[in-house]
Amino acid sequence: MLPFARVTIIGLGLIGGSIARAVKAKMPTVRVTGHDADPDVRETARAIGFCDDVTDTPGAAVIDADLVILCVHVGAIGAAAAAIAEDLPAEAIVSDVGSCKAEVARAMADALPGHIIVPAHPVAGTERSGPEAGFASLFDNRWCIVTPVEGMPEDAATRVAEFWRRLGANVEMMAPDHHDRVLAVTSHLPHLIAYTIVGTASDLEEVTQSEVIKYSAGGFRDFTRIAASDPTMWRDVFLSNREAVLEMLQRFSEDLTALQRAIRWGKGDELFDLFSRTRDIRRGIIEQGQDDPAPDFGRSHN
Amino acid sequence: MLPFARVTIIGLGLIGGSIARAVKAKMPTVRVTGHDADPDVRETARAIGFCDDVTDTPGAAVIDADLVILCVHVGAIGAAAAAIAEDLPAEAIVSDVGSCKAEVARAMADALPGHIIVPAHPVAGTERSGPEAGFASLFDNRWCIVTPVEGMPEDAATRVAEFWRRLGANVEMMAPDHHDRVLAVTSHLPHLIAYTIVGTASDLEEVTQSEVIKYSAGGFRDFTRIAASDPTMWRDVFLSNREAVLEMLQRFSEDLTALQRAIRWGKGDELFDLFSRTRDIRRGIIEQGQDDPAPDFGRSHN
Repeated sequence: MLPFARVTIIGLGLIGGSIARAVKAKMPTVRVTGHDADPDVRETARAIGFCDDVTDTPGAAVIDADLVILCVHVGAIGAAAAAIAEDLPAEAIVSDVGSCKAEVARAMADALPGHIIVPAHPVAGTERSGPEAGFASLFDNRWCIVTPVEGMPEDAATRVAEFWRRLGANVEMMAPDHHDRVLAVTSHLPHLIAYTIVGTASDLEEVTQSEVIKYSAGGFRDFTRIAASDPTMWRDVFLSNREAVLEMLQRFSEDLTALQRAIRWGKGDELFDLFSRTRDIRRGIIEQGQDDPAPDFGRSHN
Repeated sequence: MLPFARVTIIGLGLIGGSIARAVKAKMPTVRVTGHDADPDVRETARAIGFCDDVTDTPGAAVIDADLVILCVHVGAIGAAAAAIAEDLPAEAIVSDVGSCKAEVARAMADALPGHIIVPAHPVAGTERSGPEAGFASLFDNRWCIVTPVEGMPEDAATRVAEFWRRLGANVEMMAPDHHDRVLAVTSHLPHLIAYTIVGTASDLEEVTQSEVIKYSAGGFRDFTRIAASDPTMWRDVFLSNREAVLEMLQRFSEDLTALQRAIRWGKGDELFDLFSRTRDIRRGIIEQGQDDPAPDFGRSHN
């Protein structure tokens, strides 16, 4: 039994477009309807053909849906929810894919009183964006975190979880607040730091931008990938998950200061101890299939 | 005309082993002799067979060499140079592959007075180490920075540069001090920050290590690769290039504080401006062939 028969995707970028492709690949009998606020994106989506139908209005997209997934930036969730409120069937489940969950859950509940809301976050993506960037295997063996909110029917979360399993993901249930603290450290802080160091490097006077680019293979290029992510998405994430991000940032700054002192005072043992400890985390990530085990992430060397 | 006929490699880890393999692949008539202080590494190197000969002492390895490359950790360069001093032919050129150049150049000059020294740094590597980790194409289209020191015959640097070009690298000449400032930002600071954030994440109480590993696909995993690099190598780098690293770290901390304030006070425009600016650097790196253009570094998605 498929968990849903008619799935509507609002927002046809990297994630929305990948969900559509994955549904067509893994649940081909499910009808996929899409809508995007940007007419160019709708045009591209129609040309690629990853939806059965792309509608010109959000209301027309949801009118017979049993699952609606809002795949828009976190800061635009409230408006996207409000735009479907009038046409949303009473029994439809509304979900999303945002990287912060507490504020997003509140925004959806406010815009859709009386409706069934099950926020979710597939922890997957690339540095690309737009309807062309998606692919059907994006969620394979990645985690999707479903964050049920109080007062909603229990089986709604179960059905959303089953939907994500069918798309290839592993599913975990978690309270929205805990999600936001976990992602602050595994995703939001890394992005903030990557954006910062790439900015720092490009502002130097005595080292030219051309030198930074040339010699990036020494480590810097690993940071530039996530610093090339969608600026609107990440602005919204930092504003929405402000408290957890600031707390993790504070801890990171303290740890960095300790290392700075160790370097200044020539404490090689302290450096060595930390540098040895961090290898275990990488090993865990590889063992659990969350990254490519090949050196250099499997970059081609030819 | 090949720049050298008999090349000796002291230290048969990732870089030394890759140089040996690259010489055999690209200059098959050149005789490659190797030595490593660790008998297990010598045994492995003999079994793999990437050298024509692996000697049990450093002296025996250099006795008829015209190029000797010290491929040991930066902190061990002085001792490695001293160990070959007695047997080194007067006309041989001594080079290295260290990630810092000013201090390394001084250590080699002190240990080998009257000899010809041409420090160099191939900006290439992976998170792996040891004799099994190397491969012949490691330097293809990567940069090798040659940092000539005053008072040495000019054609020595030219020959070392030609050697690296034959191995597939692009070569740039640079003063040792400038090299150390460039690499502080393109390599040393990124490693320091990656080690720090992986340490910060593993020290959290309320977010478990298992959660950090599970949800690492959100960005964190990009940092764990370089934080899995050789701890001895990196301890030595930070101690050797202390001043430049501390200065870059100071700039980074200031920039991070500015972003922290922008998040705290909800200044979305400031965040958006930085996040847009950093995309250009990534574009430059891709255009100049210094990284894989595929999304996610070309990680396999299947």
